[in-house]
Amino acid sequence: MTEWWQDMFEIVHQEKTSGARVGKLTTHHQVVDTPAFMPVATKATVKTLTPQEIREMGTQAIISNAFHLYLSPGHELINEAGGLHKFMDWDGAIFTDSGGFQILRKEFKFKQNNQGISYVNSRDGKRYMYTPEMCMEIQGALGSDVAMVLDDCPPWGSTRDEVRDSVCRTLNWGQRSLDARCNDNQLVFAILQGGTYPDMRDVCARKLVDIGFDGYGIGGLSIGEPKEVMHETIRLNLTQIPPDKPRYLMGVGSPVELLESISLGVDIFDSAFPTRNARHQTVMTRHGQMDLRRSSQARDFRPIDGECGCYTCRHFSRAYIYHLFKESELLAMRLASIHNVHFLQDIMRQARVAIIEDRFIEFKDWFKQQYLSK
Amino acid sequence: MTEWWQDMFEIVHQEKTSGARVGKLTTHHQVVDTPAFMPVATKATVKTLTPQEIREMGTQAIISNAFHLYLSPGHELINEAGGLHKFMDWDGAIFTDSGGFQILRKEFKFKQNNQGISYVNSRDGKRYMYTPEMCMEIQGALGSDVAMVLDDCPPWGSTRDEVRDSVCRTLNWGQRSLDARCNDNQLVFAILQGGTYPDMRDVCARKLVDIGFDGYGIGGLSIGEPKEVMHETIRLNLTQIPPDKPRYLMGVGSPVELLESISLGVDIFDSAFPTRNARHQTVMTRHGQMDLRRSSQARDFRPIDGECGCYTCRHFSRAYIYHLFKESELLAMRLASIHNVHFLQDIMRQARVAIIEDRFIEFKDWFKQQYLSK
Repeated sequence: MTEWWQDMFEIVHQEKTSGARVGKLTTHHQVVDTPAFMPVATKATVKTLTPQEIREMGTQAIISNAFHLYLSPGHELINEAGGLHKFMDWDGAIFTDSGGFQILRKEFKFKQNNQGISYVNSRDGKRYMYTPEMCMEIQGALGSDVAMVLDDCPPWGSTRDEVRDSVCRTLNWGQRSLDARCNDNQLVFAILQGGTYPDMRDVCARKLVDIGFDGYGIGGLSIGEPKEVMHETIRLNLTQIPPDKPRYLMGVGSPVELLESISLGVDIFDSAFPTRNARHQTVMTRHGQMDLRRSSQARDFRPIDGECGCYTCRHFSRAYIYHLFKESELLAMRLASIHNVHFLQDIMRQARVAIIEDRFIEFKDWFKQQYLSK
Repeated sequence: MTEWWQDMFEIVHQEKTSGARVGKLTTHHQVVDTPAFMPVATKATVKTLTPQEIREMGTQAIISNAFHLYLSPGHELINEAGGLHKFMDWDGAIFTDSGGFQILRKEFKFKQNNQGISYVNSRDGKRYMYTPEMCMEIQGALGSDVAMVLDDCPPWGSTRDEVRDSVCRTLNWGQRSLDARCNDNQLVFAILQGGTYPDMRDVCARKLVDIGFDGYGIGGLSIGEPKEVMHETIRLNLTQIPPDKPRYLMGVGSPVELLESISLGVDIFDSAFPTRNARHQTVMTRHGQMDLRRSSQARDFRPIDGECGCYTCRHFSRAYIYHLFKESELLAMRLASIHNVHFLQDIMRQARVAIIEDRFIEFKDWFKQQYLSK
């Protein structure tokens, strides 16, 4: 029996001198060119932007959040609306994160056990259970193109014993998530955990690969650990994921980290980095990050980045955006968000071309030299 | 000597059975079809919207504010940027209000005398003077297409004596503003004051018309007075403004008020009504205003207005926008603002067609019946 999703990932080109590869991930709504960067739309909106704008920046996939949409407005409501794509008017690919990571906030007073994660809903102050089965039912109802399994993400600094327990839960929940698959148009990706203990990572990855998923997310990174440890862990996990499966590094979005990870063989990324930074007045340029609050921008009539082709850079000066931020005008956040997401998507476009032309390492080093030069 | 601006207003059609007329106001940047509605861009931005969006809604003119831009970022800076059009990337017409109305806020601790208006700048706590000459210099430097003279707006409820003094200042400042005209590409409009005392209105209007301006703003209305008083005052002022000059009713923007005023012969309007309401979750529909906070919207999958062709109504449901507002997502304000401004511009388009076809009163009555039916 060959289901459509068994051929859903095609590697178009593998670079000769690095792990970097260009691929095509076929989802129900959209073929996604990889390496791909997904802007974050936790609550069914990429903050401040319309789907039209996100599309114009070259975005093919976004990631929303099952747990947050379950809390509000509810997956049944979105299902009734015709699914998440229709609800938010996005016709590209949608990944939904399970919420295993997003539930780990003090406000939810979360507690894990083998059954799932219990949490307190602030609306009624009552404690509820969030299970792998629910998580898949929610994602099925949302109609996302890729569902992520419920995982248990141990905080940075957890002990071996804590991480061992966490891996057991992640494996158990991974299997149960797959068993609870309920939407034929949806791919299911596992999430690799194991903290930063190589043997735990190894066990977790091998066992999840044994179960067999449509793709693999590398989770639990970029949460406080040193960069070298993060890179080592990515490297290790990449040796364990079958090369013909899509590899998704979760929560990483700074330009240099994207390029480093692509060179190791990562295919998919998501991060709130570009949009969150934009709302906090920080934008990216070829020559590094720029703080739009600096008063030197007040009379700077150049665009954010002279080489950038985004709507913001084609039409507005740093001085104008500085003025808007100073006056707390919402357009400021929009213009900065447009630029930042466009900037990252532009890097991804360039990365894909460079891989095809077997000069990705050269491109990465050139970009890094410029970006880190200041 | 015939300057270009002496022929800058052309009446295309005067309706037979009402005062309504269709005209063309030629400004340096744009021929504006009247009756026209101007969204407010006080601080060089129509709140939450890009110039591209404002243009797509059929907007030909916006109004910004000389006093606010003088305070921040400063008219010299905007002049250095290439003028206000370039600074904010708007290639249509720009009116600039003088600030005579906007300065009347407690925070400015304003005091009028014959020289001008003194106010306290909160940045340094010092008292400054704002004069007609400054006001024209600022607007000249901004490069707006239409400058409004500095006026003195008496609050609703002022005594005859107070209004008499105010009219004296408005006349004095009007003449001085005209004398201080410094930008050949800029039209200069007077502002008619006189509170709601017909004789004061009469004196103020006649004397300003004697001085002779490119157009006339009707000021000091919609600030608390009863509707009938407002309509009476508009009616009176309209008999005093020469019919071949553009008539601009300042600060009025609700659909019914627009149509009523058009029927009396008003050509131009501005108001923060559509954008401010949008940010406060109130949108307009053919069948009246709608509060998007009402929980009945939560599962309403219809667009705000099924007959509306705006981006918001073509792509999103009330349920989605309700969700965005509930989650304090900024996209909510954008989508509601797009709808509201589009809705008003649509009314203006329909009004112009109805006037040309000599059926404006019919259109107005039909619209009012629908709009006020709930």
